[in-house]
Amino acid sequence: MESTKLQDGSTIVLLQKENQVLPVATEERIVFLPHYDTMVRSGMYEYYASEGQNSLPYALAELVDNSLTATARIKGVRTIEIRMLFDETLGKPAVIVLDNGCGMTSKQLNNWAVYRLSKFTRENSSFASDREAYVRPDPVPRSLNSDISYFGVGGKQAVFYMGETTRMISKPENSPDVHELILSKEEFERKEKNKEDIYSGFIRNRKPGDFSHVTQEDERFLRELIDEEPGKESFTAVVITGIRPEHITFLKQDFDLWTRKLAHVYHYYIHGVNGNDMRPCYENSDNLPNIDIQIFLREKPPRCPRAINLREIDNDMQTLYINATADTFEFKACTKSHSTVEGVLRYHPFLYDRETYPKETDPAQESGVQDQARGKRPIFDCYWNGRLIPYTTVSEFDWCARPKRGAPVAPECYSRFSGVLFTDDRFKVTTNKLTFMDLELQLKNKDTIFTRVVNGQEQRVKIQREFTQWLKTCHEKLDKQVQFLGFNEIITRTDGV
Amino acid sequence: MESTKLQDGSTIVLLQKENQVLPVATEERIVFLPHYDTMVRSGMYEYYASEGQNSLPYALAELVDNSLTATARIKGVRTIEIRMLFDETLGKPAVIVLDNGCGMTSKQLNNWAVYRLSKFTRENSSFASDREAYVRPDPVPRSLNSDISYFGVGGKQAVFYMGETTRMISKPENSPDVHELILSKEEFERKEKNKEDIYSGFIRNRKPGDFSHVTQEDERFLRELIDEEPGKESFTAVVITGIRPEHITFLKQDFDLWTRKLAHVYHYYIHGVNGNDMRPCYENSDNLPNIDIQIFLREKPPRCPRAINLREIDNDMQTLYINATADTFEFKACTKSHSTVEGVLRYHPFLYDRETYPKETDPAQESGVQDQARGKRPIFDCYWNGRLIPYTTVSEFDWCARPKRGAPVAPECYSRFSGVLFTDDRFKVTTNKLTFMDLELQLKNKDTIFTRVVNGQEQRVKIQREFTQWLKTCHEKLDKQVQFLGFNEIITRTDGV
Ligand SMILES: Nc1ncnc2c1ncn2[C@@H]1O[C@H](COP(=O)(O)OP(=O)(O)OP(=O)(O)O)[C@@H](O)[C@H]1O
Ligand SMILES: Nc1ncnc2c1ncn2[C@@H]1O[C@H](COP(=O)(O)OP(=O)(O)OP(=O)(O)O)[C@@H](O)[C@H]1O
Ligand SMILES: [Mg+2]
Ligand SMILES: [Mg+2]
Repeated sequence: MESTKLQDGSTIVLLQKENQVLPVATEERIVFLPHYDTMVRSGMYEYYASEGQNSLPYALAELVDNSLTATARIKGVRTIEIRMLFDETLGKPAVIVLDNGCGMTSKQLNNWAVYRLSKFTRENSSFASDREAYVRPDPVPRSLNSDISYFGVGGKQAVFYMGETTRMISKPENSPDVHELILSKEEFERKEKNKEDIYSGFIRNRKPGDFSHVTQEDERFLRELIDEEPGKESFTAVVITGIRPEHITFLKQDFDLWTRKLAHVYHYYIHGVNGNDMRPCYENSDNLPNIDIQIFLREKPPRCPRAINLREIDNDMQTLYINATADTFEFKACTKSHSTVEGVLRYHPFLYDRETYPKETDPAQESGVQDQARGKRPIFDCYWNGRLIPYTTVSEFDWCARPKRGAPVAPECYSRFSGVLFTDDRFKVTTNKLTFMDLELQLKNKDTIFTRVVNGQEQRVKIQREFTQWLKTCHEKLDKQVQFLGFNEIITRTDGV
Repeated sequence: MESTKLQDGSTIVLLQKENQVLPVATEERIVFLPHYDTMVRSGMYEYYASEGQNSLPYALAELVDNSLTATARIKGVRTIEIRMLFDETLGKPAVIVLDNGCGMTSKQLNNWAVYRLSKFTRENSSFASDREAYVRPDPVPRSLNSDISYFGVGGKQAVFYMGETTRMISKPENSPDVHELILSKEEFERKEKNKEDIYSGFIRNRKPGDFSHVTQEDERFLRELIDEEPGKESFTAVVITGIRPEHITFLKQDFDLWTRKLAHVYHYYIHGVNGNDMRPCYENSDNLPNIDIQIFLREKPPRCPRAINLREIDNDMQTLYINATADTFEFKACTKSHSTVEGVLRYHPFLYDRETYPKETDPAQESGVQDQARGKRPIFDCYWNGRLIPYTTVSEFDWCARPKRGAPVAPECYSRFSGVLFTDDRFKVTTNKLTFMDLELQLKNKDTIFTRVVNGQEQRVKIQREFTQWLKTCHEKLDKQVQFLGFNEIITRTDGV
């Protein structure tokens, strides 16, 4: 055995055998870089199918979240495009999410690739250029603050959940150059095999419109994309290839389903605080939101290309609820720690011979209880910073639940309203933005105070009494029951809703 | 601007201004190491409270999983100890998980620290010493294969969910040395601040029993622990400090609750394939499992220390179900992709004047439907490689659900059985081992074939007919209803159950 004193005072001990007894305790330097599966497989177990529901729309939503954040300061139209290129005669399948947001400098693009670098840690970062201290946005109605880039994982999880390679293309404002960065599973594997640094790569800086580096035939759709660059002040394009075949099948076959889900997630961003009220009586006067979220899907001809603006979708669940509303009951919840939640209940009356409570468009979700309009469905959809957290719902609160006995209003009325809750980020969500951590628990805490809100004013009255009164009035004024005493035949009336 | 040709053919372009136009496209080398929050905060959003349930027991379970895997090959008693040291007069609060398993070489300890390095990627690793190709274990009843170290994240997520610092102490078989590695949030922060390598550290190699490096007064409990080392062939101790105060409160105050939950999770590991049948008629002949999972909790005197072997717990839900069973119905499900699931239904009869279906011990879970024994609770608990996946349950299958109309057996009987499903890892679970990805979906696929199993033999008969027959027999033979015609007074009978 040799033992040598080094300059800095540490000792190297050379052992003849691995299991030789040590004369003194030694220290051995190790490196424990996270395996690249941290990124490549991060989404796999994050966006898992929730028993029968395909979670792919919610992975896409992560990219839309980023684009909403990036376009937050735009005064004109904020454009977000999701392009599905599934015409294999034009190149390999690709999903592109493109926005006209602020773009990224090469430093920011570098940071994009850093897993778990959130806006909260970025401010403490050792990179001076990076210390953009985080400021919580001012309260806005429905918390529509576009502040939904949060944990530093969403984009990476989403792209690797969908495919195997991602090319980020971005041009920041006031820069003449476009920056490109490719992350791919294959590259990670190659680097590991060749014992190269796993977490290093290259950003290409080039002129807008310059596609000289795109040489592969199966990527020629990229030239088209790059061709659109000149003249754009700033933009970001996320180009995903190596899309998993089952995703392609789903995106093609269930186009209506997943676009409707996205329209549900961003309902209040695309329609504004009052949502998509299409009834003629509705005053469409206040400034409409300037957010265009567009979806394109191109398949091999003769299949027609499809295009839709999420705003055109008129059968997402929020749209259905809103347009079947005869009266609303607004309230606010304030927890012990002073987090507040806005809430709305919407009454869907019984009209003539049927309930107007909207049917669940997704049949998998339908859970029928014959004689109840809402059935077993929970009352509340829950929005966080303005976007839906899809797998968290709140079934009811004490004060709006049907009493076990002695209901002061006809029991079936307790099943005729839907609801929605709006929180800001004082309530925590999981990194995949699929569930809240403890929204229901906090709201059901005995210290949480509920107050009714009328015309923006909080009413200092017991919420349960207010609610019961409201429900009673709704029932008396809005439910229109027709009793057929001497039944002869069914005739079709045209005066319903 | 200067532009220099380098030896390897690449070009360095020195720019005067950051936003200067590039003469040619350039490539810029970047590094995008995952932020250390990848590890430090990984558990935070993984073990989130599932609306009212505290998930801490399931974080502890990750460490028990590792110990079960590590002790799998031990012929004698497999000992796993969870020690909670909350007597602050003896040092700062600490949670220790100790096992007499195979331990880790310093290379393996290094790998322990690598986030997301799973046994599947380890075999492809560039470290030659590491290429221990993964072999799926042979099928065993109930899939009790101890193969529950899986994704390469559990240990790290769990320790950082519970506390801020972890000291791993391990001695592998056939080694004279003990290896120690410390990971701590503070260290990560320090390294970032000083621009040191984030993912590097030191493993200390020392003699068993040598605690000369433990100098801090508030860590003197470590000396005690290290003092126990001499004479042990191999072991691993996970020592967590910086425990979050709310966890300490929970662990102290809800000792019975969380130990019961752990007893539920590992029920079949600690009691064997037939579970904890405590009835005298039960033949206790077959070899009992050799797994001791012991819990100790030490608080400041005069509060008494507490100690329990999970095997002693007689009120975890599986124990309650098993001991309230009057008859069982075993079955197997085989999916299209040839994954199989073992299942058991257990009949809990109505006796004299009450249902014997066990009550939920956790009141938060109780959901009462007055006239039904099981109420709204799902039928099946689901086990994966022998351990409970706590947040996935399966409510029912077609063939054992109460028919909508014309039930061939008295309807209330459909509410008198509980069930359990056992899968191996052909069914996927999420990395936090809290939920299955798509168990229910796969089982409910029309191609899944269910067969009844009698004495280990599959019966090629329609399962629904077999089941209905079984239920009918249970009802006729086991339910004992007493109708009090001329009621006088209540007397206590002693011949029940
Ligand atoms: N379309 C975009 N335009 C501009 N910057 C973007 C865009 N997409 C991502 N970024 C930048 O990259 C960062 C990382 O994105 P990513 O989605 O991975 O995490 P995040 O949005 O910060 O957090 P979350 O986990 O909540 O998604 C963002 O914070 C943002 O700074
Ligand atoms: N008590 C232990 N004894 C021996 N080896 C251990 C022990 N705990 C952990 N290890 C080693 O460290 C590795 C990493 O553990 P960790 O729990 O972080 O991930 P994993 O068990 O591999 O996967 P999972 O995410 O399913 O927990 C294990 O695979 C195992 O090789
Ligand atoms: Mg994001
Ligand atoms: Mg583990």
